[in-house]
Amino acid sequence: MPPKDNPKIFAPACPLPLRDYPTVTLAHGAGGALTKRLVDEMFAPLFKSRELNRMHDGAVFDTPERRFAFTTDSYVVKPLFFPGGDIGCLAVYGAVNDLAMCGAKPLHLSLGLIIEEGLPMEILWRIAQSIAYACDRAAVNIVTGDTKVVDRGKGDGVFINTSGVGVVMTAHNIDATAIRHGDAVILSGDIGRHGVAVLSAREHLDFETNILSDCAPLSDPVLALLEDDLDIHCLRDLTRGGLATALIEISDKSGLDINIREAEISVDGRVKGAAELLGLDPLYIANEGRFIIILPAHQAPRALSILRSIGVSKSSGVIGAVAVSEGGKGEVICETALGQHRVLDLLIGDQLPRIC
Amino acid sequence: MPPKDNPKIFAPACPLPLRDYPTVTLAHGAGGALTKRLVDEMFAPLFKSRELNRMHDGAVFDTPERRFAFTTDSYVVKPLFFPGGDIGCLAVYGAVNDLAMCGAKPLHLSLGLIIEEGLPMEILWRIAQSIAYACDRAAVNIVTGDTKVVDRGKGDGVFINTSGVGVVMTAHNIDATAIRHGDAVILSGDIGRHGVAVLSAREHLDFETNILSDCAPLSDPVLALLEDDLDIHCLRDLTRGGLATALIEISDKSGLDINIREAEISVDGRVKGAAELLGLDPLYIANEGRFIIILPAHQAPRALSILRSIGVSKSSGVIGAVAVSEGGKGEVICETALGQHRVLDLLIGDQLPRIC
Repeated sequence: MPPKDNPKIFAPACPLPLRDYPTVTLAHGAGGALTKRLVDEMFAPLFKSRELNRMHDGAVFDTPERRFAFTTDSYVVKPLFFPGGDIGCLAVYGAVNDLAMCGAKPLHLSLGLIIEEGLPMEILWRIAQSIAYACDRAAVNIVTGDTKVVDRGKGDGVFINTSGVGVVMTAHNIDATAIRHGDAVILSGDIGRHGVAVLSAREHLDFETNILSDCAPLSDPVLALLEDDLDIHCLRDLTRGGLATALIEISDKSGLDINIREAEISVDGRVKGAAELLGLDPLYIANEGRFIIILPAHQAPRALSILRSIGVSKSSGVIGAVAVSEGGKGEVICETALGQHRVLDLLIGDQLPRIC
Repeated sequence: MPPKDNPKIFAPACPLPLRDYPTVTLAHGAGGALTKRLVDEMFAPLFKSRELNRMHDGAVFDTPERRFAFTTDSYVVKPLFFPGGDIGCLAVYGAVNDLAMCGAKPLHLSLGLIIEEGLPMEILWRIAQSIAYACDRAAVNIVTGDTKVVDRGKGDGVFINTSGVGVVMTAHNIDATAIRHGDAVILSGDIGRHGVAVLSAREHLDFETNILSDCAPLSDPVLALLEDDLDIHCLRDLTRGGLATALIEISDKSGLDINIREAEISVDGRVKGAAELLGLDPLYIANEGRFIIILPAHQAPRALSILRSIGVSKSSGVIGAVAVSEGGKGEVICETALGQHRVLDLLIGDQLPRIC
């Protein structure tokens, strides 16, 4: 424990007012405004480092010869299996995609399992197989791992942590602060599938036809864009908090507005129907195989032709543009199908807890 | 999920006979024989990679210019705070030490938190401070992180995963297979403190005086040995399963015997007393700031003088030697204080679950 005479670290009191939130709530882990507050006010000042300050999906660090990306994520999705995927492949693609969003080619993954006593061995076996298959598909290896077991009732089947190391394939800084007025915003496909698929499995909802999670590795399209030497300013996958949260974080950090048009954002009819039934906004629903690309508008046609040649991003399209902020701070403004303008805000928590 | 026509991955049945263990038990996560079986029979064949096959504390991977170490561990210690430490500093030192055992200087850490809904914010704050202090002491940075929250009753306060990346500071292979007949085995200090400290806190045992966990970063002694160009064959920290398990794994992998003398192994009198009371064998009790060094015998005096000049390893001593196996397979033979010889075996589980 820190000695009390270390002024650098030993602050007198918890920086989050305990009056407001004396305990941790589900919303603190949901990727919305409360998560941001926890990270910004408690963790970031304590763990200050240049890399962490960038608050990207992963950290980029330099060695004299090359740049590496390093990322971590824990997966607590409930249930463990859902249409189109399971916690195992999710954990692999999650790490691979975070590396891809740093412009990195994934090299190696670590695998940390926290298993609840009593998990059927057969379930663990199915998850392990899924991890192996996902690694094969994403061309990465698990190179180091750890297994812990906690007492019955102190876990929830299995939690998985994957961390990943990759080599950054570009000399540009891929980061929210690199976006510029006039940049095009490209979305790589339809949104909302993953969240609806998990929710339907969790709540045993029977939609007319099965909606499959979009979970998939995104390195192929990202590496193809980088190989073509496109001047990519920012990449972001649309996980917890969905498209809206990703765009809000980017606009907030860059101080620029992002204008998007709802009509350009593709949502499958079944996803739309389910979201309406459940009172969810597809813009905020988590995806696990979708991302946005922000780059100079004149390069958008070339980027689209590359993206559309690859299965996972074949339905890519431009959904909006970056603009100098009118209000002085970055905002995301969505033009609805009816032509109205709506400013998107961070949700306090998330519509759906434990979605990844 | 893997398609059934992928012969590489889709095996017909779970490789662990479900008759024996239809569900995961605490022992599967305790670092003993059952953990080994789970890893050897289920995970290793699925996740085959050259790096994973080495089964070290971390993976070493090469780039054209240099070698990196990469490691991961999850921490589920119960209780969260214990005499001499807490889950936060444990998670930092654990990653730092695994990197050190690869002969690597720690560069960067990741931090993955899985928090149970309802954890007092004040507790999280204390843990976060401890993480920051431990990073400061071990000269590493948290560069990337992730926070998840699970429902009340589906976790246990907080679980922490740390992964680490470091630069390997030697061209030698530091590995069990590198040990040779005649090598000296050095132990860096007394054993058993961590396990007894955690157990006393968990069970509210009141030993006469407080036994403090030995948890501490081990990079300083390791880097000092490497800087002196000593020909280190193997390094291993003595966590889950303690000194005995570490030596058994090394002898098993190398095919060589390791002979140790109980009289040379220092155990604090209070630890000895507590272990006797609790029916524990100190050789198998977990440590979080102790390690062994195996190197040519003629280099042992030089190594000892370096180790003894550094606080955390000031009580280092030679406890035994490596020898060609008489039985044809590697064994660890302990000469007891009474002159008898006892072959050490892997425990099925561990004496103490959730010790780290």
